[in-house]
Amino acid sequence: MYGAGDVRVEDVPDAKLIEPTDALVRVTRAAICGSDLWPYKSMEPSDTGRRMGHEFIGVVEAVGTDVRTIKTGDLVVSPFLWSDGTCVFCREGLQSECLHGGRYGFDDVDGGQGEAVRVPQADGTLVILPIGEDDALLPSLLTLSDVMGTGHHAAVAAKVGPGKTVAVVGDGAVGLCGVIASKRLGAEQIILLGNNPERVALGQEFGATDVVRERGDEAIERVQELTDGLGAHSVLECVGLAQAVETALEIARPGGAVGRVGVPEHDTTPTGVAFWKNASIAGGPAPVRAYIEELLPDVLAGRIEPGRVFDRTGTLDEVPDGFRLMNERDVLKFQIAF
Amino acid sequence: MYGAGDVRVEDVPDAKLIEPTDALVRVTRAAICGSDLWPYKSMEPSDTGRRMGHEFIGVVEAVGTDVRTIKTGDLVVSPFLWSDGTCVFCREGLQSECLHGGRYGFDDVDGGQGEAVRVPQADGTLVILPIGEDDALLPSLLTLSDVMGTGHHAAVAAKVGPGKTVAVVGDGAVGLCGVIASKRLGAEQIILLGNNPERVALGQEFGATDVVRERGDEAIERVQELTDGLGAHSVLECVGLAQAVETALEIARPGGAVGRVGVPEHDTTPTGVAFWKNASIAGGPAPVRAYIEELLPDVLAGRIEPGRVFDRTGTLDEVPDGFRLMNERDVLKFQIAF
Repeated sequence: MYGAGDVRVEDVPDAKLIEPTDALVRVTRAAICGSDLWPYKSMEPSDTGRRMGHEFIGVVEAVGTDVRTIKTGDLVVSPFLWSDGTCVFCREGLQSECLHGGRYGFDDVDGGQGEAVRVPQADGTLVILPIGEDDALLPSLLTLSDVMGTGHHAAVAAKVGPGKTVAVVGDGAVGLCGVIASKRLGAEQIILLGNNPERVALGQEFGATDVVRERGDEAIERVQELTDGLGAHSVLECVGLAQAVETALEIARPGGAVGRVGVPEHDTTPTGVAFWKNASIAGGPAPVRAYIEELLPDVLAGRIEPGRVFDRTGTLDEVPDGFRLMNERDVLKFQIAF
Repeated sequence: MYGAGDVRVEDVPDAKLIEPTDALVRVTRAAICGSDLWPYKSMEPSDTGRRMGHEFIGVVEAVGTDVRTIKTGDLVVSPFLWSDGTCVFCREGLQSECLHGGRYGFDDVDGGQGEAVRVPQADGTLVILPIGEDDALLPSLLTLSDVMGTGHHAAVAAKVGPGKTVAVVGDGAVGLCGVIASKRLGAEQIILLGNNPERVALGQEFGATDVVRERGDEAIERVQELTDGLGAHSVLECVGLAQAVETALEIARPGGAVGRVGVPEHDTTPTGVAFWKNASIAGGPAPVRAYIEELLPDVLAGRIEPGRVFDRTGTLDEVPDGFRLMNERDVLKFQIAF
């Protein structure tokens, strides 16, 4: 990406092993993330550009001399951040804070929207997928790299559990995965706040029991009506815009919990409403690596189908179109097949 | 209270039973709360004045016809809010949100800084104390009405547990009770942020292992030094002023938890720092009623001594002095003995 709206597919030097803890992965599936749209909307023009992409599945082509668990030929999924798996935060399941981790597309690390990626800290980062390269499950497995784990993180942060009333703010891919996660964790009522007809319909197939198409005060009123005037036990904030965050805080029940995963538009939040009703606020960048092993069996068994959020598949050359279509909300989520 | 700085002791009509669920309590101990200082600093002058006080122990003199568990002659402690004990929130342990509850000193309900109080919803509100009226434990039992339960709430909201590193922001009575609560819940390291020599010394007797006397950026730096650069697992925000809230958010470790009980100076909070490190924010007005039964055995056994926060005891006539002294920080917490 060379600036807002300026995505180019270019030849770059081949990815290769640098550190003994690296793996070299030939990418077979990748995706465009909703968060990639932030620079797509606002990035200053750049001469050198920036490598994009952090959601991918691929085949291991080579490993460094210190890599123990990952082997050449393995089909692997990477979480959207790499992490060593051994530091104090990784051991606590907060790999997103790994002391020796980092982001794809920065420094000497390739972006995931490309043919091959050097994966640092391969043992800590990658998870081996026990399936073949052409498996029909690949789209759903690909969501474990980010969007499904992020929706799950929102649900965990919002303390979703059996019998709970849940509200999901946002019908984007993360919000829809939040619906899947909420149902999977036993929620009784799942209210989806969104107004895109196709997305809302998919949310209902995923388990949303109610839909609120209004915004702002009207949305708050509707959720109150749907929850006996009490609000939702658990609210998943999957947008990040100020109005969405405000709505999320307002519709939480006293003693409820708001799980935030939407990239915040603002650094400040009107938390007063949460304080006075003892609602908790949690969440942030999802430690997706911690969740892959938990979610993988359900994907493999077909019990959850988060891959249905991909409504368009294209080649690497079509990635600029993918950005444009997602930005215009014509496509929910774009998958790249190699 | 007739306005900022204007506290008067006056004769008022005798408290009496109104509803069949009421109890009439003759007050034997009461206290001035740190939150009473907010109107003491800022209340607009008023012709009618406002009844003050919501922390008290007393003897039941009469009960309404529907009261089942509280009897005449019982020595009781009241939480700072009254609650029915049967609504959906009370059953969840969030009596502060009772659908039929309320505050002392408003409408037809007397304030606790007086000789007698009509206690609504007596069965849900009051807790019988299995001791005599002159017991030396009374000061500690009195703290169960608010300040000890509030410190405990901060610790619970901040997820204090065995082996955790805790930071307590504020050396007021609530902060000091937060230290007691943190030690009681098994914290390994308890860093107290405060700079009043006597209060800090009491905090150390209560279990604080480290003291940070600095404020703002310097305080943040000191806490980082004391926690291997990681921050505290649990942060108890016991002040409410904007700088204290900011400090609390900054010193939380990634994946940590901030428990807020300080009455917020501002409705908005710079939550960005918490989001990006996945720190949770919880807390609010403490459901003290839920905690009395949990804390009572430890007070009765002398394992915790929160009553030591009272550094001045006076009569009802001395309450105006008590306000002044607490406001000037010459007294930590003022107890009224009848």
